[in-house]
Amino acid sequence: MARRGDEGGCAVLRLNEDNARFGLLAMLILLYLLCGAAVFSAIEHPTELRAKKLWTQRLRNFTETHGISAEDLKAFLRTYEEANVYGVRVDALRSRWDFPGAFYFVGTVVSTIGFGMTTPATIGGKIFLIFYGLIGCAATILFFNLFLERIITMLAYIMRWFHERQLRRTGILMPSDHVRGSGTSGGESDSLESWKPSVYYVMLILGVAALLIACCASAMYTAMEEWGYFESLYFCFVAFSTIGFGDLVSGQKEYYMNQEAYRFGNCLFILMGVCCIYSLFNVISIVIKQTLNWILKKLDCRCCCRCTRKRLWHRNAVNPEHIKSRRNDVSVDTVYDSEADGRRMSGEMISAKDFLASNKVSLAIMQKQLYETANGGPRQSYARHNGFSGGIGALAIMNNRLAETSVDR
Amino acid sequence: MARRGDEGGCAVLRLNEDNARFGLLAMLILLYLLCGAAVFSAIEHPTELRAKKLWTQRLRNFTETHGISAEDLKAFLRTYEEANVYGVRVDALRSRWDFPGAFYFVGTVVSTIGFGMTTPATIGGKIFLIFYGLIGCAATILFFNLFLERIITMLAYIMRWFHERQLRRTGILMPSDHVRGSGTSGGESDSLESWKPSVYYVMLILGVAALLIACCASAMYTAMEEWGYFESLYFCFVAFSTIGFGDLVSGQKEYYMNQEAYRFGNCLFILMGVCCIYSLFNVISIVIKQTLNWILKKLDCRCCCRCTRKRLWHRNAVNPEHIKSRRNDVSVDTVYDSEADGRRMSGEMISAKDFLASNKVSLAIMQKQLYETANGGPRQSYARHNGFSGGIGALAIMNNRLAETSVDR
Repeated sequence: MARRGDEGGCAVLRLNEDNARFGLLAMLILLYLLCGAAVFSAIEHPTELRAKKLWTQRLRNFTETHGISAEDLKAFLRTYEEANVYGVRVDALRSRWDFPGAFYFVGTVVSTIGFGMTTPATIGGKIFLIFYGLIGCAATILFFNLFLERIITMLAYIMRWFHERQLRRTGILMPSDHVRGSGTSGGESDSLESWKPSVYYVMLILGVAALLIACCASAMYTAMEEWGYFESLYFCFVAFSTIGFGDLVSGQKEYYMNQEAYRFGNCLFILMGVCCIYSLFNVISIVIKQTLNWILKKLDCRCCCRCTRKRLWHRNAVNPEHIKSRRNDVSVDTVYDSEADGRRMSGEMISAKDFLASNKVSLAIMQKQLYETANGGPRQSYARHNGFSGGIGALAIMNNRLAETSVDR
Repeated sequence: MARRGDEGGCAVLRLNEDNARFGLLAMLILLYLLCGAAVFSAIEHPTELRAKKLWTQRLRNFTETHGISAEDLKAFLRTYEEANVYGVRVDALRSRWDFPGAFYFVGTVVSTIGFGMTTPATIGGKIFLIFYGLIGCAATILFFNLFLERIITMLAYIMRWFHERQLRRTGILMPSDHVRGSGTSGGESDSLESWKPSVYYVMLILGVAALLIACCASAMYTAMEEWGYFESLYFCFVAFSTIGFGDLVSGQKEYYMNQEAYRFGNCLFILMGVCCIYSLFNVISIVIKQTLNWILKKLDCRCCCRCTRKRLWHRNAVNPEHIKSRRNDVSVDTVYDSEADGRRMSGEMISAKDFLASNKVSLAIMQKQLYETANGGPRQSYARHNGFSGGIGALAIMNNRLAETSVDR
């Protein structure tokens, strides 16, 4: 992994690059939360105030019409709130804790959706929930990760097929290449490794898939529940992203047409949607990480230019150690070299030996870029060299860090 | 990656190993859900029925005492339910959509906790939520993954330090080794790579950390909210695991002692708890994956013994292709070889050339195991060779599969 912090002169750069990225992300998320809070507050606050006013008015009307003291009514409403916890509503809902209800409940637990339309009310249920959830959520995270792996493998395979077909059309690839590639037993994984789809295409495909699932599911919900199509879409997003507010919950009425089919469809759509959105979130988070790397690079460059100028004030030649250590990082880190170029352009003197050494580095990078271009490679190659492959990710972070997850590396 | 399915004879083995694991996990989760549903149904159903009966009784009492028709009262309760959506309760709660309330809300959105104590009621708010959540949740997933990476790195570093100290005490390691290791600039990552902590220790540490955070947070909640200590623990689990039912939500009363400090503490505890439990879930999911691999291996072995017997019935020598293709997989896959040994023991005839080839394989594996043992290596070495390091995990699944996430491998 790039150890930019050891070499940069600024306070920012003294931080390890990973720590800097983590801190930057935390700061950006905080900013995002503050902006979001401001917008939501602006949108929703007036409605809330109106609703409160309306409720006070209705409460007064009711007490006056029926001659009940406000205190009595409030005490009654408190008992109603208590009953709500056990799943009681004015218009009878389906039983919460019959077997299908309990199944729906455990489904929302392990997927961490947690609508909250059903919650354990007994101490026994709560204790069981903690232990049940611990294993269940971990198993579901594994399930989502394996699904992600499967879907990415599948997408890579399909996209490679299209890519190959395109290459064959333009005459770059001979038809025999394909036959050889898939003919041998090791062909599939070998050729998948040599060409990889862009994260943007995968994001697009997953986004379209999620939208399709949400639209189909919404059509079903609009037909079965008394929701508008847009409300159903909102429900789909809240459920699929495992936020699960519980303001809208599907399948809660006491009776539906084709009840069993609807329940099955509901489960299936939620499962597909959650898997798809989980994958989409992870792909988007890769793009966010690239953006972070890009920001860090920019900050780094600006910082370094200033530092270099300061350094030039003290001594007029770059430290040879600097380039030597850079040479070792060539396989991971081109950011350095672009920085180094920047420094060189700012008029520093370097020795002939260092010049040759840095030329070798440039040659190696150029060869790599040529190879990438020949393979229909990425447009944003900077992201490939930013320590991006150092085992990031929910499970694979622990790859090569824990004994049980490592192969000889 | 191991392609066991191509070589095994059984229907199960015809599946790719990854697909088999995915299918097995899905089946086990389904079984887990069914069992969970049965248990929860048994625990909670009686309470639900009692609560419903009690509510019907109270409703009748109230209408009789105050001379209101049941229909009028129900209509009134419906308006109350409507008002609930906008955050109205009998006992005034804090404002939902002032800035701190909105901040708490967006926090529950991006972390996918989604208590549902506050939900957007306007169309504008709902539309904004979808787009806001899409970026926010992705960013938070990245945050959790980076946190996971940081915490695992830190734990590995600390545990390595203890391991080294232990080795030095027993006299296996010279004191100079440590100095050399940390003296060079590349020392840290190099020595972390050579020794890795066990996933079980990491799980234990994270579990203890999560428990500690939950206990401290519960003490705070017990003091500030009107909850019992156990209820607070239940809330902590539900919040930290991002299930977020919303039956208990912290910080909802209109006034607290030291309001600002409590709000800050609440946010901090939830943040720490969510990060910690997320890491714990991911570590547990690795253990679950190992268990799946173990089950698959057992199934495979049993299946293979039967298959081999069937195959022996048809032809009395193993297919040489079989061993040849296995030889290529040596660095990833010892499961094959243990299978192959099993087959050989069942009395198959192999050629001298194949025997030598398989001997080379055994030698390579033995050398590897010796190296592992010398490094204080893993006890469950089978897990290391089951395609476990092939880029599993939320983000890193896409390592080496997408152009933007790969370095020359």
